[in-house]
Amino acid sequence: MSLAKENVVTSTPHSTALETASAYHRAWTSGDLDGAFAYVADDITCRAPGGDITGKEAYRSYLGGFSQMMTGLTDVAAFGEDEHALLFHNPRTAVTSTAPAAEHFTIRDGKIVESRLVFDRLSFGPPPQP
Amino acid sequence: MSLAKENVVTSTPHSTALETASAYHRAWTSGDLDGAFAYVADDITCRAPGGDITGKEAYRSYLGGFSQMMTGLTDVAAFGEDEHALLFHNPRTAVTSTAPAAEHFTIRDGKIVESRLVFDRLSFGPPPQP
Repeated sequence: MSLAKENVVTSTPHSTALETASAYHRAWTSGDLDGAFAYVADDITCRAPGGDITGKEAYRSYLGGFSQMMTGLTDVAAFGEDEHALLFHNPRTAVTSTAPAAEHFTIRDGKIVESRLVFDRLSFGPPPQP
Repeated sequence: MSLAKENVVTSTPHSTALETASAYHRAWTSGDLDGAFAYVADDITCRAPGGDITGKEAYRSYLGGFSQMMTGLTDVAAFGEDEHALLFHNPRTAVTSTAPAAEHFTIRDGKIVESRLVFDRLSFGPPPQP
């Protein structure tokens, strides 16, 4: 999987929430799920399209499935302040390279306790059958 | 339509891009499309789920349709820097109050020239037939 950066804008030179979210993001998007999940709280809630995912184990299974579909990723923007960070990026899969995803993180004591995740499931779905 | 704020975090006390995006956002979400479109460039491109929308007129028609579905909105986060702003919020419709949307704006000379918009179309679709 290759990573690309495209006019990434990063505000707040010192936001520990953004540092944590960025470290998590770099890890899982480069295939290092163990590294990524060092930044995830045991009782994380991920508010994902279609339903909430509760707990580190369920979230790891969900994210692991998504990461296997990814062939690359283009970061677009990353911001953070206090307890929150907000990332916007274009994952690439076999189906799309232009559909974005955004993640809003709440981070406490260096761990992600909530992720609000948005992407368009239809854009990432399987291509129509011929 | 009622507006609510929920742990809105706003970085960069002086970001003219964020000021422009916020003024645009406040206007259209309170039903003032004329006011909102004063901040939109004639040749805007909106990269929306399912396809690009090009030009102010087509974009106004698209956004007007969405605004008619909305019964409210909860802002979650707003960040900006230089030429870019990033908003994350939960529109409320008859179908959902928990599905978020994110918008990444590129702003030049006080006008929005590009919007990258992400929401999950399935979450905002019509409810299943009984």
